[in-house]
Amino acid sequence: MLYRGSLISSLLVKNKYSKLFKMAKSSFEYVKNFEQDDTLLPNSWIVVRLDGKCFHKFSEDHNFEKPNDSRGLQLMNYSAYTVLSEFNDLLMAYGQSDEYSFIFKKNSTLYKRRAAKLLTTINSKFTSSYVFYWNKFFNDELKYPPVFDGRIVLYPSEENLIDYLKWRQADVHINNLYNTTFWTLVLQGSLSPAQAEKRLSGTVSADKNEILFKEFNINYNNEPEMFKRGTLLIRKTLSNEASNKNISVIVDVHSDMLKDSFWKEHCYLLSKSKIQYLNYEGPLTDIVKEQIVCKAKMAQEQIEIRV
Amino acid sequence: MLYRGSLISSLLVKNKYSKLFKMAKSSFEYVKNFEQDDTLLPNSWIVVRLDGKCFHKFSEDHNFEKPNDSRGLQLMNYSAYTVLSEFNDLLMAYGQSDEYSFIFKKNSTLYKRRAAKLLTTINSKFTSSYVFYWNKFFNDELKYPPVFDGRIVLYPSEENLIDYLKWRQADVHINNLYNTTFWTLVLQGSLSPAQAEKRLSGTVSADKNEILFKEFNINYNNEPEMFKRGTLLIRKTLSNEASNKNISVIVDVHSDMLKDSFWKEHCYLLSKSKIQYLNYEGPLTDIVKEQIVCKAKMAQEQIEIRV
Amino acid sequence: MLYRGSLISSLLVKNKYSKLFKMAKSSFEYVKNFEQDDTLLPNSWIVVRLDGKCFHKFSEDHNFEKPNDSRGLQLMNYSAYTVLSEFNDLLMAYGQSDEYSFIFKKNSTLYKRRAAKLLTTINSKFTSSYVFYWNKFFNDELKYPPVFDGRIVLYPSEENLIDYLKWRQADVHINNLYNTTFWTLVLQGSLSPAQAEKRLSGTVSADKNEILFKEFNINYNNEPEMFKRGTLLIRKTLSNEASNKNISVIVDVHSDMLKDSFWKEHCYLLSKSKIQYLNYEGPLTDIVKEQIVCKAKMAQEQIEIRV
Amino acid sequence: MLYRGSLISSLLVKNKYSKLFKMAKSSFEYVKNFEQDDTLLPNSWIVVRLDGKCFHKFSEDHNFEKPNDSRGLQLMNYSAYTVLSEFNDLLMAYGQSDEYSFIFKKNSTLYKRRAAKLLTTINSKFTSSYVFYWNKFFNDELKYPPVFDGRIVLYPSEENLIDYLKWRQADVHINNLYNTTFWTLVLQGSLSPAQAEKRLSGTVSADKNEILFKEFNINYNNEPEMFKRGTLLIRKTLSNEASNKNISVIVDVHSDMLKDSFWKEHCYLLSKSKIQYLNYEGPLTDIVKEQIVCKAKMAQEQIEIRV
Repeated sequence: MLYRGSLISSLLVKNKYSKLFKMAKSSFEYVKNFEQDDTLLPNSWIVVRLDGKCFHKFSEDHNFEKPNDSRGLQLMNYSAYTVLSEFNDLLMAYGQSDEYSFIFKKNSTLYKRRAAKLLTTINSKFTSSYVFYWNKFFNDELKYPPVFDGRIVLYPSEENLIDYLKWRQADVHINNLYNTTFWTLVLQGSLSPAQAEKRLSGTVSADKNEILFKEFNINYNNEPEMFKRGTLLIRKTLSNEASNKNISVIVDVHSDMLKDSFWKEHCYLLSKSKIQYLNYEGPLTDIVKEQIVCKAKMAQEQIEIRV
Repeated sequence: MLYRGSLISSLLVKNKYSKLFKMAKSSFEYVKNFEQDDTLLPNSWIVVRLDGKCFHKFSEDHNFEKPNDSRGLQLMNYSAYTVLSEFNDLLMAYGQSDEYSFIFKKNSTLYKRRAAKLLTTINSKFTSSYVFYWNKFFNDELKYPPVFDGRIVLYPSEENLIDYLKWRQADVHINNLYNTTFWTLVLQGSLSPAQAEKRLSGTVSADKNEILFKEFNINYNNEPEMFKRGTLLIRKTLSNEASNKNISVIVDVHSDMLKDSFWKEHCYLLSKSKIQYLNYEGPLTDIVKEQIVCKAKMAQEQIEIRV
Repeated sequence: MLYRGSLISSLLVKNKYSKLFKMAKSSFEYVKNFEQDDTLLPNSWIVVRLDGKCFHKFSEDHNFEKPNDSRGLQLMNYSAYTVLSEFNDLLMAYGQSDEYSFIFKKNSTLYKRRAAKLLTTINSKFTSSYVFYWNKFFNDELKYPPVFDGRIVLYPSEENLIDYLKWRQADVHINNLYNTTFWTLVLQGSLSPAQAEKRLSGTVSADKNEILFKEFNINYNNEPEMFKRGTLLIRKTLSNEASNKNISVIVDVHSDMLKDSFWKEHCYLLSKSKIQYLNYEGPLTDIVKEQIVCKAKMAQEQIEIRV
Repeated sequence: MLYRGSLISSLLVKNKYSKLFKMAKSSFEYVKNFEQDDTLLPNSWIVVRLDGKCFHKFSEDHNFEKPNDSRGLQLMNYSAYTVLSEFNDLLMAYGQSDEYSFIFKKNSTLYKRRAAKLLTTINSKFTSSYVFYWNKFFNDELKYPPVFDGRIVLYPSEENLIDYLKWRQADVHINNLYNTTFWTLVLQGSLSPAQAEKRLSGTVSADKNEILFKEFNINYNNEPEMFKRGTLLIRKTLSNEASNKNISVIVDVHSDMLKDSFWKEHCYLLSKSKIQYLNYEGPLTDIVKEQIVCKAKMAQEQIEIRV
């Protein structure tokens, strides 16, 4: 009883204290005013680019194949695909090596165009997927949590945006030819990394092509497209002849964006009018198959519900 | 031979084409100029706050206990701990519910104070750890990749920074008392959520304390500190009497930051002079133990190397 | 002598003190790092708009005619003309009432596109000219220094920029019809301002046109173009038949920018290619005449120098 | 009659057209959304610094005395005084050579702390006053409108702000000693500018003091304070013994802000508590006298109104 009484008075004290909490909280809320508005300029292309942090070390720690690890690239692509699936305002994404760029449509008002919100949401979803889906692509365990940083850039014109994507794709071409030759010299040619570097110093692309072909019988042109060109994720339409229905899918392709014909064909992507997705006639990649299965399941469920 | 010849000429074409690649790349590089400088004002406190995205649904999908799930909170704390371990410029971090705030020291020049770089690196590392360490705290599998968004705020004065932390802690107090009463009414009192909500409408803290005590014999004061106050991660010094050595550790505590005495005791944290960490005399939590073991191992390895 | 000696030692002290000055100065220079980069996004239209501060009072204090004071508008135009004369990167300027908008070409790199520098330079030059040239347009003295504030806005597309100018011109149309009717009711119709306001409340444009015509025999269409449409300053080419030479001039016109034909005719203004100015065939306004005289003088001086 | 009829129908057309105007205006108003928020971080010192543009040429064109022109400096001070008079949130202003810095109190919410608004209003008012009051200080006419550009900088701590003012004042000391010696060598010592520059190359302050004293019998210490230290405008209290009333005035002084004693004495300026202005006991400068006369007039008018 005594206990109870003392508790009641303690509750009364508590009561007073709690009022103080609420008063306190409202007296602290002024700190919200220090958050600064970071709304992005309307009517311009928003690009979010993510980069692996210390991925040189990360790829060694996880025994990535040199110069390209298909599993690693596929995991990158799959992670980007989960991002694209979530945001309809994302037109496309382009990835190469340990980086991925996401392109929003020009007039997107997602999250009121707040820069930090857009940037961190994409960054977090991508990172999260990379860890979550690791075992879908690698047999060995992930050893520690990988990190990606990100930045956000605005492009006011279609020309600037296209040049951005060409810049990233020209980059992969140059790097991949170098890396392919370098690692061939090291792994097949028994050169040390330092010797390989010296051998390649001052060479132009033709020299590297020739080294590969003459010394190792490798025709660089036959290297996988994913290595030479990176991967583009875009939305297309897939015709199902059986059901006579079209479904919208995200496809992973390795198009040559340096060619103007690509941009002519895909101009609908960048136009203001309602986007009509092109028909897709490429291979049924794992990413595409997954969507077909998933949409079929959803359709089946709806039928069952009706029945 | 013919083939070879045609390949050589194809290589020459390639050569020309590759020069074009390099020329092209440099002609596209102007797009880098569209990246805008986001250096933060010097000499002010940088706060990065992360928030779980759609965590109401996420916690239901993963059967989180109501109103607080210890495993979930511990995973949040552990993820934040991995962030703090990586960046010495982080003074402390404070977490409650599905959010975590990271405080950089006032004069940090990490990443040249570039906002997006700081924000995304912390956001990504936290997210990555949350997924990676899920099974350390949960027996059931993670069902899908969780997402955290983030923002970055500057506080020019010590007073503003302290008020920020008080604001977040006053918030947890108010929410937790409400949630504890609400879920007790629902889970033990068999009220529907709507009935519980109605019952609590208009009540002050004392009313909630009384409901808990009189109807359910729960003394709110005895609820776990982690639930009532959230978790603070700060650096302290740990004396090892055996080895007579001090080690610096990150400790997870549940201090009352609303009391000015806390800030008097920890004023060294915010001072400009070289920080002298306070001695830690609290319980050896899992997070603290892990650091002791880790540092002991490192010391052992050094001995072995010397031997 | 003694004096001298003591001065020499004072000079030595001074010397020490002065070293301190230099040391001091360099130890304070860190404060420059607090200046934040405000470079504007490339490849987008920069618009600087100035507005008179408290010009309602200013125009009363200086007995401006109602609803429009030609002298005041001409002074605005002349001040804007001095700004345009100084910066070739300014494509045009548009003014109405107590505001003026200045349009930079899309790819201008003036002052490295630093926002504050562009904004204040234009703001200061305009203000300075307004005071300096006051007596060119007003007989009565300027009573106190007028103030203009300014803002800077980016438009990523040609369409946005054109809509900006249409917005400002639609504004002048609506305001001027209202003001013309209002002041006619007050000045010729002997209504009090309050009565005039009430009379006009709820009326549409046709009502106002009818009031002006039926009650005061004023055809609004015959009002001066400068009042109805504001003033546009743009660069054109002027053919001098006598000398058979073309000169480039800034002309003050009152074009209807709401018509698409205007933008078709002036598309060269907004194109990326080197601008070919249209021939000017309008009236020789004071602003145009001044440039003819000025260029003639310069040509004459060159002839004299050669002789 | 016919005319009237056709006019009425033209008015009807007009009516339709005018509705279009309003619709048009509202359809263009979206362009307002491109204005970006530029609210400054709360609780930090706002400094606006103005600089004369091309003032080397301007001072030559207007025959400014070398190395300092008292009339020019007084006009700068007077223009800054008109700015300070208008905004109570301005704590002080400091000027030297062709630049002036304005300091807002830390918690000012003038214009909601919008950067462009604060910057341009001060810039325009200063420029306007400079032109308007030219003849108060110069007998010769102003030849063309002068231009000042401006920037805005935030300082989070009192120490940073004080260092900013020390930086500007250390700058004037170093420059003025150099300029005084340079121009004495040129004007009294008959050296060409190039010779004077060579003579001073590599000299320290003591050398310059000695040149002035030994060769020209000039004791630099006796140079006017305004030249050596620049001018500080701050608010003080002036006691009127006759009326036994205190008035608040802006005083123009030449204090040594590099000394810490200055900041001890004036700490009230920077404190958060309501500012109690120090008593002023310095000379009655023209700026101070003007305020006494003005306030006396206002008091007189109030007496007359009551009578």
